[in-house]
Amino acid sequence: MKVISILALAAFSATLSLPAAAQFAKAEDAIHYRQAALAVMGEHFGRLGAMSKGAVPFDAKSAQDSAEVVLFMSKLPWAGFGPGTEGGKAKPSIWTENAKFKDHASKLEGEAVKLAAAAKQGDLASLKAAFGATAGSCKACHDSFRNR
Amino acid sequence: MKVISILALAAFSATLSLPAAAQFAKAEDAIHYRQAALAVMGEHFGRLGAMSKGAVPFDAKSAQDSAEVVLFMSKLPWAGFGPGTEGGKAKPSIWTENAKFKDHASKLEGEAVKLAAAAKQGDLASLKAAFGATAGSCKACHDSFRNR
Repeated sequence: MKVISILALAAFSATLSLPAAAQFAKAEDAIHYRQAALAVMGEHFGRLGAMSKGAVPFDAKSAQDSAEVVLFMSKLPWAGFGPGTEGGKAKPSIWTENAKFKDHASKLEGEAVKLAAAAKQGDLASLKAAFGATAGSCKACHDSFRNR
Repeated sequence: MKVISILALAAFSATLSLPAAAQFAKAEDAIHYRQAALAVMGEHFGRLGAMSKGAVPFDAKSAQDSAEVVLFMSKLPWAGFGPGTEGGKAKPSIWTENAKFKDHASKLEGEAVKLAAAAKQGDLASLKAAFGATAGSCKACHDSFRNR
């Protein structure tokens, strides 16, 4: 009976993993994908940060372009954190406290919508405010779920 | 006079490099960025390829989602190939035959528009045809400009 239960559990786990397995050929692909998506988002978010902090001159068109990229990219990385894809800088708590992790991801997606709307306004003050809120969302998730 | 000419050339080159320098803090960032953007695009393009070849079952929604990602990502990598960003798998000819490289990039962007339109049709035959054309565009550029 014990063997049957273990087999049943294994079959159940395999079913649970199916979406991730179907999306990515192997776990390494998922890890590489999420890192790549976060890197593209990070580059453009960094540009918005540089403008917000006055490190580079504010450019409304460039800010809007980067905010659009952040908005699009904000939806992508999370599929790369499916079951069985532990690794990279991801803390194991992503999988043991997955609901909390998903809350952080949703929060970022919401902030990215506001950030893109703010960038469309075309003024530095709007960008700064939205950048600060979005950066807070990034940091909260990194503090909880990313190894340094 | 020779020294002045060299200084003038250096100043001219510095001006030429300004856009890339303004966008990326350093050349390594540009290389990392273009690799990341191409990786995200490649993952989704690979999924469309798997469906086109029958390796995984055709799923209209998934195909449309992936084609939308390919379309968005198709615009991003090229900014990461600015002056002074040689490296990675990029062949030096990207910079010495830059107009040809840019033609390839534009061609891919055009194919990605058609690919996204085809995926919206919701049938495998349309996807297959557009995938083949887009894959040809990827390959043509890789054959000329990417080291193995």
